[in-house]
Amino acid sequence: MDIHQTNRVTGLFLPWPGHREGAEAAHQRLAALIRAQINSRRLRSGDRLPPSRILAEELGVSRWVVTEAYDQLRAEGYLTARVGSGTIVAPGPAAPEPAPSADLEPARARPPVRFDLSPALPDLGSFPRPLWRGALTRALAEVGDDELGHPDPLGAPALRRTVATYLRRVRAIDTDPDRVLITQGVGSAVNELCAHLRASGARRVVVEDPSWPRLREIVRRQGLDVVPVGVDDGGLLVDLLVAADHEAPVAAVFAMPTHQFPTGVPLSAGRRRALLDWAAQRDAWIVEDDYDAEFRYDRHPVGAMASLGPERVIYLGSVSKTLSPSLHLGWMVVPAMLRPALADRRAGMPLVPTLDQLALAELVASGAYDRHLRRMRRHYRRRREALLAALVHATPGRAAPSMDAGLHVLWHLPPDTNEEAVVAGCRRAGLAVLGLGPCRVRSGGPGLVLGCANLPEHRAGDVAGVLAGLLGALPPGPHGSARPAAGPASGE
Amino acid sequence: MDIHQTNRVTGLFLPWPGHREGAEAAHQRLAALIRAQINSRRLRSGDRLPPSRILAEELGVSRWVVTEAYDQLRAEGYLTARVGSGTIVAPGPAAPEPAPSADLEPARARPPVRFDLSPALPDLGSFPRPLWRGALTRALAEVGDDELGHPDPLGAPALRRTVATYLRRVRAIDTDPDRVLITQGVGSAVNELCAHLRASGARRVVVEDPSWPRLREIVRRQGLDVVPVGVDDGGLLVDLLVAADHEAPVAAVFAMPTHQFPTGVPLSAGRRRALLDWAAQRDAWIVEDDYDAEFRYDRHPVGAMASLGPERVIYLGSVSKTLSPSLHLGWMVVPAMLRPALADRRAGMPLVPTLDQLALAELVASGAYDRHLRRMRRHYRRRREALLAALVHATPGRAAPSMDAGLHVLWHLPPDTNEEAVVAGCRRAGLAVLGLGPCRVRSGGPGLVLGCANLPEHRAGDVAGVLAGLLGALPPGPHGSARPAAGPASGE
Repeated sequence: MDIHQTNRVTGLFLPWPGHREGAEAAHQRLAALIRAQINSRRLRSGDRLPPSRILAEELGVSRWVVTEAYDQLRAEGYLTARVGSGTIVAPGPAAPEPAPSADLEPARARPPVRFDLSPALPDLGSFPRPLWRGALTRALAEVGDDELGHPDPLGAPALRRTVATYLRRVRAIDTDPDRVLITQGVGSAVNELCAHLRASGARRVVVEDPSWPRLREIVRRQGLDVVPVGVDDGGLLVDLLVAADHEAPVAAVFAMPTHQFPTGVPLSAGRRRALLDWAAQRDAWIVEDDYDAEFRYDRHPVGAMASLGPERVIYLGSVSKTLSPSLHLGWMVVPAMLRPALADRRAGMPLVPTLDQLALAELVASGAYDRHLRRMRRHYRRRREALLAALVHATPGRAAPSMDAGLHVLWHLPPDTNEEAVVAGCRRAGLAVLGLGPCRVRSGGPGLVLGCANLPEHRAGDVAGVLAGLLGALPPGPHGSARPAAGPASGE
Repeated sequence: MDIHQTNRVTGLFLPWPGHREGAEAAHQRLAALIRAQINSRRLRSGDRLPPSRILAEELGVSRWVVTEAYDQLRAEGYLTARVGSGTIVAPGPAAPEPAPSADLEPARARPPVRFDLSPALPDLGSFPRPLWRGALTRALAEVGDDELGHPDPLGAPALRRTVATYLRRVRAIDTDPDRVLITQGVGSAVNELCAHLRASGARRVVVEDPSWPRLREIVRRQGLDVVPVGVDDGGLLVDLLVAADHEAPVAAVFAMPTHQFPTGVPLSAGRRRALLDWAAQRDAWIVEDDYDAEFRYDRHPVGAMASLGPERVIYLGSVSKTLSPSLHLGWMVVPAMLRPALADRRAGMPLVPTLDQLALAELVASGAYDRHLRRMRRHYRRRREALLAALVHATPGRAAPSMDAGLHVLWHLPPDTNEEAVVAGCRRAGLAVLGLGPCRVRSGGPGLVLGCANLPEHRAGDVAGVLAGLLGALPPGPHGSARPAAGPASGE
């Protein structure tokens, strides 16, 4: 065969001749080959060479040939030996490291982030590493060999059972494990649902305005039109659905009835009933994004709509805010009628690794997940109160009326403020924040959506001070200068 | 608020009145509420109740109220207490378990599988649990807090660097980490590539005939037409591409140049050059599915085409056959020109959990992955030889000429055999096998694609015997009876 070959056992790429030659010639030839690979950067600094015994066996030469070649290259500075690590390609001009690309080192191109106030993040420093390690270890010890084969595309049965029990217990959703599908998070579930809706002939879906910006992006990418419907202090303006639906049929409403993002209000009881009635009459789906129900601080969380209308409501949840978005792990509860079509779409599609699913099942079933949530509720309540107090004390603007809940504060800026300039100023000052503008379809007053999860209480004043400084330094807007408003709204 | 509320700290769903009442009334009311939830199956057998201290704090009652209510329900048989597990809903007629659904217990509906000869599986009993646990533990200890936030949609930089080094070392692919994208396996990568091709205006892609059945399904689901092109002893019939492309442009060729599935042949050197030339002339992509290059037993694996034509070849690999398909973890190397478009599509899309990516990076960088592969090569070689020998000894038909490589054997059945009847007979006898028919677009002789990874050497004779029995018992086909052929082909 005249094409390149790779050394089988060692994985070292060597065009080694099939015929035998003298040992002397062989070790020089081997050294030359390895040297050439280092010079051409096929082998690079830090690469590990195979043990001499293995390479010798593989090439059909004596071990001496290999050790001799390695010794020679060490003497030349191409290789180094480290105790316990074997023979490694040395750093140096013969084997320069490629410059890190902008892509792999994105932080270098931007100012360093001192405080990440992204509202979609949990406190990354509070990820329960020992609990997760324990759950993974138990899952790995207990998983059956057969579960390591091709996984169930709907999710590991053990996790689906655990999630069904959990949702029944904490969200009063009465579901069988059959209707629970494991997802790769809420965004992934929305993507999957939109693909199904589009394939079923749907054209339009309603999205709350304001909402999380990426939601509209996912909906549009699947070829659906976004119909924005506004939100007031009672949540989604359900009355407007009738008008929206009258123009052309709406296939689904994406809503956050427990704690609307970013406004922070729950959907009122009357509107819940109206929304369910409308969905039943129009054969439309309600997609309930229950993104932070775990974090209500003053009282019990508002019940899930899925507990009231199991035939019309698709319920979405995840561990993105309770553990980490890097786990890409969530669930949905679907009406029995929808299940077969969604299951069909999933055949052969990728899902969360089975072991991670089983680890989450362990974590929840053992009670450790509940304990972690109790701890985090206290933690986040303190951080949220500190941020609010600091803003009220120092920063022009006012807090939106909202529940004592969640991982963010919506801060309305004085009416004439240039929101984009404030967001850009924050970035320069090392604060990653989300403006209210990108959350909106229709225009409205300026504001900031400030996540509190990664902001220690004693640094809340720093953030409020940076904001106050930015607002004071901004040139006056078209209708006058930025000025402090009357303080937090009465709803707080 | 008149809607359902869930207990915050404990997660127990209780419509508890806000006002204070006497302790005596309170414990009876609490017991009644919990009893009602068990009777209505909101709480079910095995559900854990919150510790009395927590529930008391939450409800604003004395702890005595809760312990009294629990005691009463224990006396009534609704609850049990287990040491170390707290208070749990008791089994019994008051709280019947739902019957397991067919979906969650698929094994009950089918005959038990004695030997899983699916060709796409590694030996599930050889999954390196201690190595993987160690790699996960190290990844969990070393991961930075910031890496637990929203992950890089192209893959964790550490794994992309490790994969680039690994592919350079074992497959002679000279790539920068920038061009390495982490995937959720080969199927997922094919899906992603097809979505991109379709969005770029492509209509037709070439797929080898025969090939893995799901490949065509994924291609078609993305709206592309499959153009099947045959395979002979030299691999894909590259000459036929010109004719296929003449009818209407072909955007890509999906090929397995190292070890074609299921035929087991490598693409000849001449055809590699012809395929690369054709792709360069026609601006078409070659998608190289390098699904089992790790398992060549007699010599070095054939070089990857990606090392010869980095501007035209998209290279796909995964750990599905080296570790487990349940990890959903793979990689692709893409030409620099394709990278921006693919990166755009990935924004916000789910990926393998970061910790699993970092665990694989640990496993490879430590050398443990290479050691595992060396061990598995010896293991699979023995199993493959045992299966081949048993078939040659006992089973009518002949082995396809193939390399000493991979995790499967292609066994041609006598010409007049009813392949579907043999496959169905195998299933009844507890053998999960893949027929050659489903791999094909155009019709051809009958055959079986038999995976050897999960078949211990000493059971190879059993399998060959079952097959021989089935073939002997079948009614004669349209052109005569099944009869043994001359043994393995000369290529073996």
